[in-house]
Amino acid sequence: MTDEQRLADLRERLGMIHDFRRAGWLLSWDQHTMMPPNGTPSRSDQLATIDRFAHELFISDELGQLLESLGDYERGLDPESVDAALIRVARRDWEKARRVPADLRAEITRAEVMGVPAWAEARKNADYQAFLPYLRRNVELKLEYIDCFADSGKAPYDILLDDYQEDARSEEITAVFARLKEELIPLIREVKGAEQVETSFAHGHFPVEKQELFGREILERLGYTSDAWRLDPTVHPFATSIALDDIRLTTRYSEADLESIFHTSHEFGHGLYEYGIDRQLDRTPLVELNSMVLHESQSRLWENLVCRSRPFWRFFFPKLQELFPEQLGDVTDEAWWRAVNRVEPSLIRVESDEVTYGIHIILRYELEQEIIAGRLALEDLPEAWNAKMKEYLDVDVPDDAKGVLQDVHWSGGSFGYFPTYLLGTLASVQIWETARGELTDLDSQMEAGEFGALREWLAERMYRWGRRFPPGEMLQRIVGGPLDAEPYVNYLKAKVTEIYGVRV
Amino acid sequence: MTDEQRLADLRERLGMIHDFRRAGWLLSWDQHTMMPPNGTPSRSDQLATIDRFAHELFISDELGQLLESLGDYERGLDPESVDAALIRVARRDWEKARRVPADLRAEITRAEVMGVPAWAEARKNADYQAFLPYLRRNVELKLEYIDCFADSGKAPYDILLDDYQEDARSEEITAVFARLKEELIPLIREVKGAEQVETSFAHGHFPVEKQELFGREILERLGYTSDAWRLDPTVHPFATSIALDDIRLTTRYSEADLESIFHTSHEFGHGLYEYGIDRQLDRTPLVELNSMVLHESQSRLWENLVCRSRPFWRFFFPKLQELFPEQLGDVTDEAWWRAVNRVEPSLIRVESDEVTYGIHIILRYELEQEIIAGRLALEDLPEAWNAKMKEYLDVDVPDDAKGVLQDVHWSGGSFGYFPTYLLGTLASVQIWETARGELTDLDSQMEAGEFGALREWLAERMYRWGRRFPPGEMLQRIVGGPLDAEPYVNYLKAKVTEIYGVRV
Repeated sequence: MTDEQRLADLRERLGMIHDFRRAGWLLSWDQHTMMPPNGTPSRSDQLATIDRFAHELFISDELGQLLESLGDYERGLDPESVDAALIRVARRDWEKARRVPADLRAEITRAEVMGVPAWAEARKNADYQAFLPYLRRNVELKLEYIDCFADSGKAPYDILLDDYQEDARSEEITAVFARLKEELIPLIREVKGAEQVETSFAHGHFPVEKQELFGREILERLGYTSDAWRLDPTVHPFATSIALDDIRLTTRYSEADLESIFHTSHEFGHGLYEYGIDRQLDRTPLVELNSMVLHESQSRLWENLVCRSRPFWRFFFPKLQELFPEQLGDVTDEAWWRAVNRVEPSLIRVESDEVTYGIHIILRYELEQEIIAGRLALEDLPEAWNAKMKEYLDVDVPDDAKGVLQDVHWSGGSFGYFPTYLLGTLASVQIWETARGELTDLDSQMEAGEFGALREWLAERMYRWGRRFPPGEMLQRIVGGPLDAEPYVNYLKAKVTEIYGVRV
Repeated sequence: MTDEQRLADLRERLGMIHDFRRAGWLLSWDQHTMMPPNGTPSRSDQLATIDRFAHELFISDELGQLLESLGDYERGLDPESVDAALIRVARRDWEKARRVPADLRAEITRAEVMGVPAWAEARKNADYQAFLPYLRRNVELKLEYIDCFADSGKAPYDILLDDYQEDARSEEITAVFARLKEELIPLIREVKGAEQVETSFAHGHFPVEKQELFGREILERLGYTSDAWRLDPTVHPFATSIALDDIRLTTRYSEADLESIFHTSHEFGHGLYEYGIDRQLDRTPLVELNSMVLHESQSRLWENLVCRSRPFWRFFFPKLQELFPEQLGDVTDEAWWRAVNRVEPSLIRVESDEVTYGIHIILRYELEQEIIAGRLALEDLPEAWNAKMKEYLDVDVPDDAKGVLQDVHWSGGSFGYFPTYLLGTLASVQIWETARGELTDLDSQMEAGEFGALREWLAERMYRWGRRFPPGEMLQRIVGGPLDAEPYVNYLKAKVTEIYGVRV
């Protein structure tokens, strides 16, 4: 076989693994949006089987030998070429996956599929005890998973982190989060002492159909097209790409407020990143975006930097007023902008403001570390959650639905995911400032409802590359430096100063 | 290994194949109901990969050896036992599948997935030429498929038939259909000469939301429960079971009439058959209902024998009147019953009455035979279609959307499926008459909106058995005899006499 034939063989094998994974993503999307509840046990069989085969196919000796035999060829390639990236990424993933037995892989999937509806039901009833056995099973399996990497020299929690961010280290994250706590906690205290922002008009009765209409109007301006995207309601919003031209957003509506706008725009950011990947990378591991820091940088950029900005609301607020004249007829766009940027300690992460958001993440990160280290028994988790909410945000948690049960992640076995939200938020400010430096009329474009130039800039500088560079290198290429908390801290301080008139 | 271990191994392998197949069914359901159109090429990769692996896993030497090694064990079993049926069915399927290379299997799937949206688009534009290349590809692949069975001694068309009805023979079907033509064509002529039934009130403006509401009300009375079923709109109605507790119906709404009721109840019959299978057969080939004659007997039973019956409308018509008082306020339930049983040659099979329906099927069956035998060039298919419509029904086809492009089947490679609709319709009358003989108050139950006893009778006598008996034996067990056209002919004649007052 020639190198070209070997590479074609590798691509075909990886292509089929890709097909399996995306089929699995569809089965998961369906479980969260469409599946009748009694379908759960069969769905767990189906997903476990798909995961098992994709895994077995990937960790096979044949694939390992193929990668081995392509070593000379790889060394002769431009290291920045697609083929070199493909071989490098496939080898990294193969070496990692190879450690995990197919039975464990299938069992982890099965437990996750069973965990999600159990969580949704428990959350509905604010019944942590009902969820506990599922959570326990997920944690047990994660510890077994960690054992597969016992000789890797990595800290246990870092093994989990690696699934969401290549080579992330908790030591570094802890340091960044310590710095943020240093800034955020006093900032929250300052705001608490200042005159509060008027938000009464943002609460009331907002029929779901109108919210959906408005959400779609925003999405279509931002870049959603119905030939390649969907939007559906779910319990906990998420985005997934069944294919580069089949992007699925989900959101959730509450009739009491308009938070759905921010869920939708957050998920849009995820979707746009996938949608923007160069089609020549399709059906390879180079479309498997594995840096959740970069991914969350995009959800947070579109959610916060775009959809909580003044120019955005200059354009969209009149439309919102038209839809809800009774509630918003007398409100100015400036007042609305202040309301959606209010800072206020609250219970729910996905509805929290930009300042307290970080604290919600840090709390989860700290608890996850305790759980994985075996220092916190799962029975005691709600108590620990509530204590930290009190300590950091001075918030009393009335029940577990509004506390420890609020997020889907742990029910689906995602430990190590949460920190990427906050790290991604830091990156979002760095990327935003770079974009603003180059697209000098960005504000006036947004004020005119135009987002095409921003989209193209992001696609060109970031999206199209897929996974061709390691996350740190990708960020370096976009913003010219490493991840940095200071732009975020300064951004928050400036906003708080503007809205609350406090000197920070 | 003991026989028990071998059987457990067989069950586990078949279980995983089952998981793959149902995952594939979900991907297909999604393609028809949810997927954004640009997702098609990736979906064809995904489905081709899943089908390829399920096929390879199934036709493997290991599975063949396992079946071989269970021969003695099988001979010692009660032939009516679950295990005996499992081994027999798996062996039959294995011997058949083994003849088909995995590449061909994957290619057939790929062509089907690409064909369906091309058909939907062509149908929308009444553009047969745009669909022709896809149809040609499907036919080519079917001929390659037939070649895999060259030494089986079967007629080419019978090889295709076997995928929908075990051991069905076109010779026999042709004889049954000749008998039906003998009766149906004169019957249609008689009706044409008689005083026509008033149907003007059945046409007008019926908003989709109200139709959906009414459709769900019917479904819930019939036995649909939202914990295990879904109903969604699509271009061409179908039903699928992603799992025994995850039944998906689809229907289609036209604002101009209330035909959706009959689409929905037809698909309900399919769903109920799957839903009624004994749960102990789950995740085995014994839930893969492969007799489309029996399957269609249930869709047609619920569509026609139940939902076009007088007692059904005695119960439901007042509710329909409430929803559409302007159109139906002055109509009696008797007049409505007559209208939904009118006999009238028309263009669209799925909207045709019980008498002309058979002609629509016979037309397709005859054309399929010509195509597969190579006697009819695909370019000439619309002309041949239109000529037969004129000859049999005296109907002029205004365009191909209302002619050759109306059905989804050929776009998805289903050749040999159509005859099962009519054979199933014959069986539906036989089964119905048996049920009525045993459930003597069936009419008064239906008139009270009660369908539980009928459902239980069907589940007990038919549904729960899944695929434990060959189709002919299953029908024999239910009705005490073989498939027979006469009850159907007599049923139609009686209805026509009653409605049109003609002696036939």
